[in-house]
Amino acid sequence: MTQPSDKALVPFVSVDHMMGLVHHLGIEATLRGLAAHIEEDFLRWESFDKTPRVAYHSDVGVIELMPTSDGEMYGFKYVNGHPKNTSEGLQTVTAFGLLADVYTGYPKLLTEMTLLTALRTAAMSGVAAKYLAPKDARVMAMIGNGAQAEFQSLAMKAMVGLEEVRLYDIDPAATAKCARNLAGSGLRVVPCESAEAAIEGADILTTCTADKQYATILSDNMVGSGVHVNAIGGDCPGKTELAPGILQRASIFVEYPEQTRIEGEIQQLDPDHPVTELWQVMAGNAEGRTSEAQVTLFDSVGFAIEDFSALRFVRNAIEGTRFFTPLDLLADPDDPRDLYGMLMRAAPEVAA
Amino acid sequence: MTQPSDKALVPFVSVDHMMGLVHHLGIEATLRGLAAHIEEDFLRWESFDKTPRVAYHSDVGVIELMPTSDGEMYGFKYVNGHPKNTSEGLQTVTAFGLLADVYTGYPKLLTEMTLLTALRTAAMSGVAAKYLAPKDARVMAMIGNGAQAEFQSLAMKAMVGLEEVRLYDIDPAATAKCARNLAGSGLRVVPCESAEAAIEGADILTTCTADKQYATILSDNMVGSGVHVNAIGGDCPGKTELAPGILQRASIFVEYPEQTRIEGEIQQLDPDHPVTELWQVMAGNAEGRTSEAQVTLFDSVGFAIEDFSALRFVRNAIEGTRFFTPLDLLADPDDPRDLYGMLMRAAPEVAA
Repeated sequence: MTQPSDKALVPFVSVDHMMGLVHHLGIEATLRGLAAHIEEDFLRWESFDKTPRVAYHSDVGVIELMPTSDGEMYGFKYVNGHPKNTSEGLQTVTAFGLLADVYTGYPKLLTEMTLLTALRTAAMSGVAAKYLAPKDARVMAMIGNGAQAEFQSLAMKAMVGLEEVRLYDIDPAATAKCARNLAGSGLRVVPCESAEAAIEGADILTTCTADKQYATILSDNMVGSGVHVNAIGGDCPGKTELAPGILQRASIFVEYPEQTRIEGEIQQLDPDHPVTELWQVMAGNAEGRTSEAQVTLFDSVGFAIEDFSALRFVRNAIEGTRFFTPLDLLADPDDPRDLYGMLMRAAPEVAA
Repeated sequence: MTQPSDKALVPFVSVDHMMGLVHHLGIEATLRGLAAHIEEDFLRWESFDKTPRVAYHSDVGVIELMPTSDGEMYGFKYVNGHPKNTSEGLQTVTAFGLLADVYTGYPKLLTEMTLLTALRTAAMSGVAAKYLAPKDARVMAMIGNGAQAEFQSLAMKAMVGLEEVRLYDIDPAATAKCARNLAGSGLRVVPCESAEAAIEGADILTTCTADKQYATILSDNMVGSGVHVNAIGGDCPGKTELAPGILQRASIFVEYPEQTRIEGEIQQLDPDHPVTELWQVMAGNAEGRTSEAQVTLFDSVGFAIEDFSALRFVRNAIEGTRFFTPLDLLADPDDPRDLYGMLMRAAPEVAA
């Protein structure tokens, strides 16, 4: 049987490869690498095609395709969201992604993105904190100790030098899991019995809970002056975590206002409530933190450009490593007009 | 290192697998199998979600995502179109596709679709001819002898009992290639030196040329009464193959009028020119061929539901065969909240 030509082979990064790559680079270096790619892409924000995601909704979940392009590369992520899956022993969210060459249309990378999305979400929070958190932020309260908690904590360590994380979850088992996982990470880990205890002395308040409804994880009086609020869990219509009073007091920074006003914390506010696009701060076109007393809020919902940055990072990071396999995904006949001839030549030899 | 659980594995059909599968089943059986799945899906046309395709255009080509769903399964195809690729030794079109379970959002099949699209396009023509071609059609003129020509010829043999194919292409090398490939297929193959010679005695006229402009492959006087015209090559805005006079005389059948009016032959007609949806003929809601003298035209552009049918076919056909490999595409931690723990447990063991 003929061997596929190199042109027909697409590097594939499996879950196992992705885990190997992260260990190979080190998790903090991975998070910093992702953050660097996100920063690069945010600094050229206007060169991106911002196609709306294409969602297919059913009674029990949603399947989305999130494409974007910078004009040279094209990327998309497939991601599902099925909250009921957990009770059936399946993941709520699974994802994979593809990067292709705009000039040829040829795919250049296929990769798992469940782990990668968790990593890029944390890296994004790290980037926002780099621009918005108080100088010398060393202590973070981590409210909600689910799948994202360890990644968030390590991203803050990698990006702003976090030293202590104070954990709280309504489920003590989640806190115990997170504390166990972060032992040996170099962070001081303090499990707390209430959200109020967790925020004691914290410079950064990160909320990442799974309640699929308007919930008040942080009430107004819990947010002192000068803190940076990193709100991750308000990420779909009908799901928020912060009391409206916090939003009224805070300087609010977002990825892409058109999307955040539908999915983020600010869905609770008037549609013309002022917000600042984070890329404008990074580009020096808008101010980030301007005073010590200011409450800054990063209302994170996740945007296609961050997935694109993550795909670029992986494509660069796997080069020269063993953390991918070539996938025979593209038919590549010697003569493009002779697809049928290629098929015929692949016929199994008949035994004599 | 931990083995991924079965839940995390997605069957992957490479180009090599696809070719093996076609030889395993036989190409005519493959085409009939695809046709049967297309017919099943066209008969439940109204149960499909008809999301418009999402296209990213550049100066040199287009990258498209074509999703659809029947409420139980969700499918999409990635496909590019880069006419200039041929001159660089690359394919104009490459494609792959995914089928997922709507209830869980989990992918269930990833497959090459360059070959599969060629096969399903031919199977679709075969289905249309079954409903529209004159009874006992035995001779087809094949105008345009590129990548699709052999597949079209064999689909007509498999679906309506075609016995003779008369080949013509402006490039004699393409005709020679096609004739060579079809030798031994059971079809009588007649290379012709003009389109006029090719259509002599033909019951079915298939046009599939690559001219990317308004061209007249068939002029009005070339289309006699009673024939079935199977027009494949008019498949994007600005690209048509038939003289308007043919369209005025013919009963026109289309896949999805909203799309065909933009991409098909009928872009040359008034937007309210009457056309019949093929699925309505199949369902018995509309008439197909009603007289011997009638000229029928299938204005084929290709629709997402046909790709969905093709994905379903492949998923069924590979069961119990060796024509796929399990791909570790989905992260599947034992505890969904413990993605980080899964990552940690995958750490390479340190040598003593």
